[in-house]
Amino acid sequence: MKSPAEDTLIPILRISFPHEDRLGRGKMELLEHIRETGSISAAGRAMDMSYRRAWLLVSDMNRMFRDPVVESQRGGQKGGGAALTPFGDELLARFRKMERMVKFTLAEDLAWLEANRSPQTDR
Amino acid sequence: MKSPAEDTLIPILRISFPHEDRLGRGKMELLEHIRETGSISAAGRAMDMSYRRAWLLVSDMNRMFRDPVVESQRGGQKGGGAALTPFGDELLARFRKMERMVKFTLAEDLAWLEANRSPQTDR
Repeated sequence: MKSPAEDTLIPILRISFPHEDRLGRGKMELLEHIRETGSISAAGRAMDMSYRRAWLLVSDMNRMFRDPVVESQRGGQKGGGAALTPFGDELLARFRKMERMVKFTLAEDLAWLEANRSPQTDR
Repeated sequence: MKSPAEDTLIPILRISFPHEDRLGRGKMELLEHIRETGSISAAGRAMDMSYRRAWLLVSDMNRMFRDPVVESQRGGQKGGGAALTPFGDELLARFRKMERMVKFTLAEDLAWLEANRSPQTDR
């Protein structure tokens, strides 16, 4: 998860829903891994997350929205996979767009913070 | 901390700094309380936070920026108070402005999320 970008300031967006629910980059990253791997457990493994934890996050998302975000596909012996629904695809694309908009909108303020941050936070 | 606004979707902004430092609404709320109360311990109490925890957050902020955010004022028997520096005032005002900009920029997306969230998350 380390990248050169870690040496810059990064705005992090989360959306607070009623009743302590949250939507943020952790859930979005999980959706991306489910889309790539076709499996909740493989997606969880890719994020060093237990199957139980990954399943709970998916369950949260499916509960938070009118339409399901991830659907299970019953398969053969391996227990089937999982895939994003069309709504899940749209949610993911929209959240990533929101993150880009925030970064763009705050560009000047982030530059101000960067100019004022302590040099001692560099290695 | 409960308010009618909790039944709506609220974008939460945090800024990730290098080396795990974060700037978000918790630190900003602490600054507001310090400005109001003139005391780190009173500000902490207003947020149900130990003096140690409040002091550490202030110490983090003072370390994160080139200029101090809060300055201690040595006083009499009570041990003196604390106040925001001009930079601290500017930082606080700017962060609150950034939050308003995010809310404004994401208004359409927040309305989309609101329209698609599950009715069962209402009480």
